[in-house]
Amino acid sequence: MSSADETPAAPAGSSIPEDHIGITQLLSILACGELAAFYRLTDEAELAPGVDGRIAMARMASAQMGHFELLAAELVERGVDVRDAVAQYQSTLDQYHQLTVPRTWLESMVKTYIGDGLAADFYREVADVLPTGPSDLVKAAMEQTAHSQFAAAEVRRAVTDNPRLVSPLTLWARRLLGEAITQAQYVLAARDELTDMLFSAGGDLGRMTEFFDSIQSRHDARMSDLGLST
Amino acid sequence: MSSADETPAAPAGSSIPEDHIGITQLLSILACGELAAFYRLTDEAELAPGVDGRIAMARMASAQMGHFELLAAELVERGVDVRDAVAQYQSTLDQYHQLTVPRTWLESMVKTYIGDGLAADFYREVADVLPTGPSDLVKAAMEQTAHSQFAAAEVRRAVTDNPRLVSPLTLWARRLLGEAITQAQYVLAARDELTDMLFSAGGDLGRMTEFFDSIQSRHDARMSDLGLST
Repeated sequence: MSSADETPAAPAGSSIPEDHIGITQLLSILACGELAAFYRLTDEAELAPGVDGRIAMARMASAQMGHFELLAAELVERGVDVRDAVAQYQSTLDQYHQLTVPRTWLESMVKTYIGDGLAADFYREVADVLPTGPSDLVKAAMEQTAHSQFAAAEVRRAVTDNPRLVSPLTLWARRLLGEAITQAQYVLAARDELTDMLFSAGGDLGRMTEFFDSIQSRHDARMSDLGLST
Repeated sequence: MSSADETPAAPAGSSIPEDHIGITQLLSILACGELAAFYRLTDEAELAPGVDGRIAMARMASAQMGHFELLAAELVERGVDVRDAVAQYQSTLDQYHQLTVPRTWLESMVKTYIGDGLAADFYREVADVLPTGPSDLVKAAMEQTAHSQFAAAEVRRAVTDNPRLVSPLTLWARRLLGEAITQAQYVLAARDELTDMLFSAGGDLGRMTEFFDSIQSRHDARMSDLGLST
């Protein structure tokens, strides 16, 4: 860890050691998620109605690879082969994307904005629990996520022009949230060390419920951002 | 231009003014080429036999977007809408890629290495002709091109293991070069200002022949790098 020399390994608020196996699992999942998001965006770019959509999707995808590189560098530091890390979680991430293939550009834009927001929520929650080094890394990866405003603007414009789009896009967004939570729970259920690390820090076993509750309320706020109902 | 304050607008070796219309056309073509290369790489990633191929293609694609951003920033400085710039040249670049769709991962790897090399040749040649500001920009965009060593290693390994691949991959590489030259000539033929700027600097009208000759000889060197004949 780059910051290990300047800061204590487990600062106030985190009792998790820097070398906890759950941290490596978490970073592997995040790296795999970034790569999956990269290819999801580039695939869906073919739905773009014009050049600016194609440019925006390529920019968003490249930002995901920027996050991936940060996470991959830390995995290498931890002696993990990045290919193995990705291969281990690929099927879960692919499953999420295969279950939520957009049929239209607007569905893709809703998925981009909602998915980016869910990822940021997740990054923020875990950053709070982690010791300083990994926490800073996760925050650094999250900070670069600002490209999805393009997606939000596309959706807002479309639903303002045609309010009949609100209902089907709202259903679509609800499905995205449901699938994301299902896949997240599936990953957590299979990895006790990770689940314990994230949700029982300080003996606070109610954190998992809180976590999913807070994700739901932030999701509702994002739906408003898009001009969709909840 | 960022360097306009420190350096003369037209240094020794270039008589082309910084605001020459041909420079804007050139930067537009390069930006469009980078975006086309980005989507070419992400499309062909589905041919990758494993995770490391998918990671390598995503990294190479993101590097192209890094070049794109450098070029796009300069186009914006010049008052050009990046979308218009890309839209103007998209059909030519798309045509090259549509005429050279790889059927296998190895064909994709040959195309990556040969295409990256041709792009670097082109960047190098034009950087020599341009005034300092645009020349530095073009060199900066080119310098980041080092990811294609992955592609070269993939091809070398495959032809060493199976020498019968040499002949079909050599034919494939020859076709790539032919199509690239055809498309380049097509672009140049339609844009007199650009052609004049690139090839008649200092009244040297023989430069275009030299240019295509030097591309051929560097292509031959790259074929050797790959373990292919010429």
